[in-house]
Amino acid sequence: MSVNPAAPLEITAFAWVPPFAQGQVRDLRARWACEEIGLDYAERLLDAMSSRPDSYYLEQPWGQVPVLNDNGIEIFESGAILLHLAQKDTRLLPNEPQARVRAISWLFAALNSIEPLMFELTNVNVFARDEEWAKLRKPSLYEFLGGRLDRLSTALGDKGYLECEFNVGDLAMATVLRIADGTELVSGRPGLAAYQKRCLARPAFQRALDAQLATFKAHTPDST
Amino acid sequence: MSVNPAAPLEITAFAWVPPFAQGQVRDLRARWACEEIGLDYAERLLDAMSSRPDSYYLEQPWGQVPVLNDNGIEIFESGAILLHLAQKDTRLLPNEPQARVRAISWLFAALNSIEPLMFELTNVNVFARDEEWAKLRKPSLYEFLGGRLDRLSTALGDKGYLECEFNVGDLAMATVLRIADGTELVSGRPGLAAYQKRCLARPAFQRALDAQLATFKAHTPDST
Repeated sequence: MSVNPAAPLEITAFAWVPPFAQGQVRDLRARWACEEIGLDYAERLLDAMSSRPDSYYLEQPWGQVPVLNDNGIEIFESGAILLHLAQKDTRLLPNEPQARVRAISWLFAALNSIEPLMFELTNVNVFARDEEWAKLRKPSLYEFLGGRLDRLSTALGDKGYLECEFNVGDLAMATVLRIADGTELVSGRPGLAAYQKRCLARPAFQRALDAQLATFKAHTPDST
Repeated sequence: MSVNPAAPLEITAFAWVPPFAQGQVRDLRARWACEEIGLDYAERLLDAMSSRPDSYYLEQPWGQVPVLNDNGIEIFESGAILLHLAQKDTRLLPNEPQARVRAISWLFAALNSIEPLMFELTNVNVFARDEEWAKLRKPSLYEFLGGRLDRLSTALGDKGYLECEFNVGDLAMATVLRIADGTELVSGRPGLAAYQKRCLARPAFQRALDAQLATFKAHTPDST
C-alpha cells in the first residue's frame, strides 16, 4: 500500500523534523497499521517548526501529530487511532473475545505502562541531557524501566509475539521499544531484542518507515 | 450498585494499602465505571504488602491491579478495562461514530498524554521527594505539565465535560487529574478544577471511592 492523495483515510503528519526525531514521530504508528491491513492513506502535512494555528488544537488538543481522518470522522491520540484502524481487520485485532481483549490490553500496556518511562528516558538522554537532574535521575530510571522490561520479557517468553500472532498490541509495543534505541535497555535483553527485530522486520513496518522518511526528505529545509 | 460476591464481573484489587495510596489505586477506575452503568461486581483481594505469586504475572504482567474478569474473559490495564466496560453501555460510550471515537481519544489522552506526567509528579513529590534530582526536576516538570493542563483547559472550554456529555474519557481524565491533588496544578486552574469537582461529585464516583476505602478499612493491619 502507499501514500495516495485520493484515499479516504488521511493521516496528519509533519512535513519535516530534525534528524534525531526522524523515524520516531508517531504518525509512523498509523502508517504501519494501514500498511498491515492494506489500506492506502493520504498525508496532510504540517510545519513542525512553526506554531500550529489555533484551529488545529480543536483537532488535537496538544498540537501534536498524528490525527486520523477516516471519511470525515476525526480521531486524535495514536492509541485511539491504532484501535480504530485495528477494528477494521482481524489481522490487527482478532475476533475471538479473549484474544481480542488481550490485544487491547497490550495496546494500553505499551502506552500507559512502558511509554511513560520512555518519555522520561528521552528527557534524560536527549532534551535535558546536560542538566544536573537528568544525570542524577538516570540510574533510578534505568533500574525501574529495566525491571519493567524484564517483566515484559517474561510475559513474552518464547513466543514470537506477545499473544503468538502479531496484533495491534505488538505494533504499539514495538514502536514504544524503539524509543530506547541507542541504549542497552532493549538490545541488552536478548528475548526482547529478538522480538523487537521480528516486529520491525515486517514489510509493513519497513514501508511505513520509508514513507515517513521519504516525506521528510522531500521537505528538507534548504538552510539545513 | 455494590460489591456482590455473586456478580459475574470480578475486579482484582488490593486488600489494603498505606494511607497515602488509599483512594488512588486504579481499581477505583473499574469500580467507578461499574457504578456508572449499574453493574454489580465481585472483589478479588490481593495482599499488596507481599510479593505476588508468579501465576499472577500471567494475568497482569507488572503485578499490579486491577484485573477484570468478565464471565471468564480476563483483561488487564485499567485503560483496557475501562474500554471493555464502556462498550457495554452508551452512558460511557455513545453510539454516534464521531462522538464514540472522541470519547476513546480522550480515554487514551488521559492515559498517554496526561498520566505519564502525573507518574513523574508522584515520583518527585512522594517516592523520591528527598532526592536531589527530584528537587531539581520539579520546576521543569511543573512547567511542562502545567502547559499540558492549560491545553486541556482550553479544550474543555465552558463545556461541562470534555464532549458535553459525561463519557469514559472524563472518567479516566478525572482519576488522572486526582493524582495532582495536594498541588495547585489542577486546583489553580479554575475551569479544570470545576470540571474535576463536577466529575467527582457524581454519585457513581462517590460509591466507587467508598467501596475502595471500605475494603481497606476492613483489612487494616493490626500493627498499624
